Amino acid sequence: MRIAVDALGGDNAPDEVIAGALAAARELAQDEIFLVGDREVVENAAASDAPGNVAWREASGAIGMDEEPASALRANPESSVAVCARMLREGEAEALFSAGNTGATVAATLMWAGRIRGCRRPAIATVIPFPKPVLLLDVGATIHCRPQDLLNFAILGGVFAERYFDIGGKARVGLVNVGEEPGKGSDLAKEAHRMMCESEDVRFVGNVEGRDIGSGVADVLVTDGFTGNVMLKTAEGVSREILDLVRSAMTGDFLSKLAAGVLRRRLLEVRDLVDPENYGGSFLLGVRGVVVIGHGNSRARGVENALLGISRTGAGLLRDLENTIKDSGAASAGETT
Amino acid sequence: MRIAVDALGGDNAPDEVIAGALAAARELAQDEIFLVGDREVVENAAASDAPGNVAWREASGAIGMDEEPASALRANPESSVAVCARMLREGEAEALFSAGNTGATVAATLMWAGRIRGCRRPAIATVIPFPKPVLLLDVGATIHCRPQDLLNFAILGGVFAERYFDIGGKARVGLVNVGEEPGKGSDLAKEAHRMMCESEDVRFVGNVEGRDIGSGVADVLVTDGFTGNVMLKTAEGVSREILDLVRSAMTGDFLSKLAAGVLRRRLLEVRDLVDPENYGGSFLLGVRGVVVIGHGNSRARGVENALLGISRTGAGLLRDLENTIKDSGAASAGETT
Repeated sequence: MRIAVDALGGDNAPDEVIAGALAAARELAQDEIFLVGDREVVENAAASDAPGNVAWREASGAIGMDEEPASALRANPESSVAVCARMLREGEAEALFSAGNTGATVAATLMWAGRIRGCRRPAIATVIPFPKPVLLLDVGATIHCRPQDLLNFAILGGVFAERYFDIGGKARVGLVNVGEEPGKGSDLAKEAHRMMCESEDVRFVGNVEGRDIGSGVADVLVTDGFTGNVMLKTAEGVSREILDLVRSAMTGDFLSKLAAGVLRRRLLEVRDLVDPENYGGSFLLGVRGVVVIGHGNSRARGVENALLGISRTGAGLLRDLENTIKDSGAASAGETT
Repeated sequence: MRIAVDALGGDNAPDEVIAGALAAARELAQDEIFLVGDREVVENAAASDAPGNVAWREASGAIGMDEEPASALRANPESSVAVCARMLREGEAEALFSAGNTGATVAATLMWAGRIRGCRRPAIATVIPFPKPVLLLDVGATIHCRPQDLLNFAILGGVFAERYFDIGGKARVGLVNVGEEPGKGSDLAKEAHRMMCESEDVRFVGNVEGRDIGSGVADVLVTDGFTGNVMLKTAEGVSREILDLVRSAMTGDFLSKLAAGVLRRRLLEVRDLVDPENYGGSFLLGVRGVVVIGHGNSRARGVENALLGISRTGAGLLRDLENTIKDSGAASAGETT
């Protein structure tokens, strides 16, 4: 695949982003990686040892992490993420990675690459890793959703999860709700429940409550971007806090420290399991390209894992998503809404 | 205080509920506890050693955990939770505890005891305990909220938290949102943000993201009942899963088990910190009475802690809540909406 990397986006750009991209390029000999940013910035960081499948594309500065996306993109249409999005549109790249301002990545993609026909709105899909990985969407692209949007997310998420988790067969899709029974929840959830039950394109397992987030009852969990964002950040915050509590329980007297030393390696495995850096970013689904949004504080390892994930999952993904949405009839229904 | 206990509500009723109520009664010599349920059921479980401040009130059966609340209450207006709610209305009790069907407890309270003047809708407030306790509301009473409802929840939650956490001064209230900046989030969140900024009755600290749930930035977190329910259950599920991972990391070879043995006591402290049984239920705010909803699977210790919490927090609580809502002007505004 041809992957455009926003070399200037993220708290640790450009150094960590470029280091991660170079590391990935060495493993992905079949793929091409474009580092997008100001020439001297990229050249300084990439040094002279870049592998042959890495190229550079000119851009002029980045969108700041706290800037308002739409106005910042209007003010700087040559910013790195904007150039990446136009590379998608022109077909020069098939995939885009940015660890910069999430809203700007979404807005630039919509502005220049556009949506899949039939998807009124896109969704950000992210893997919640523990203990059984599940794909959650939307975690923040579409704050106000209609039932048809949630049905589209269910279709997109299902197709994506089949590839990403390498599921043999259709992915099981659950609807995030406040109870398991069909009549539960908001008007949005009730109507989406009905539509997913009726859809032949979704292997729907019904409502799923927050407490079953990692229980393995579904491969995909669908909700609106407000609820999904709160849910994801709650899961991240709580796991970090519990691990902090466990760590401080082990730093008391000599004997505790000794015991903690014995357990150190296995506890590090637990920490790794819940570390978002190992999962390399979230996929923006419903747009015309494979677009991956890295954590704002991504380090080289996170960037590298994200690019490996794009290469593994991305080839043919867009075509599959477009075909499934088209066949679902959402393409015509979606266009009219 | 006079506390009506739904002796028949919950997965472990009546035995565990009654055992917890008796244990609490022994500690709360100043309070009166009414066990509400069928005579023979209560008498069997309470045996003959009930302390003098425990009395019995007749009811006829319970609402099942999975029954639809409104129709179940109509079908059995003599059910234990319905009798408890009428004891609130008549002033025979000031507080109500039930570990039964949450929807039925909310519906019975609204039907017989009613709302505080100015509160269009009630909220369920629960303590998320780690690492710094925070009161989250609403976790499920009001799925569809208006901005005025969230403002009322902020006022109610603030007054409650001042008493419950024994804060010297006004409790800090945050609004759950997808970003910290004022312009973020849904239309509901934006308008609620504006109203809380302008309210003199709320010490508003602004938007709070899911990842800061236990960081101590606020004493109270306000959101709608859909988001709050998902957030609470996600926090519960994730903390349980992480602790399971830690536990299985400690059950490998002999040396790991030995090390785990050394750390056992301190790790149990972590588990206790996140165990909802130690926090004894959620408070239904905005209604005319002190109403506490226990976990469906409450055991005696959870019931006991809930009743101790009612006794500690409840005296004068309702009067304070009513006065604050009245003074806020919501009483008139709320009635017209």
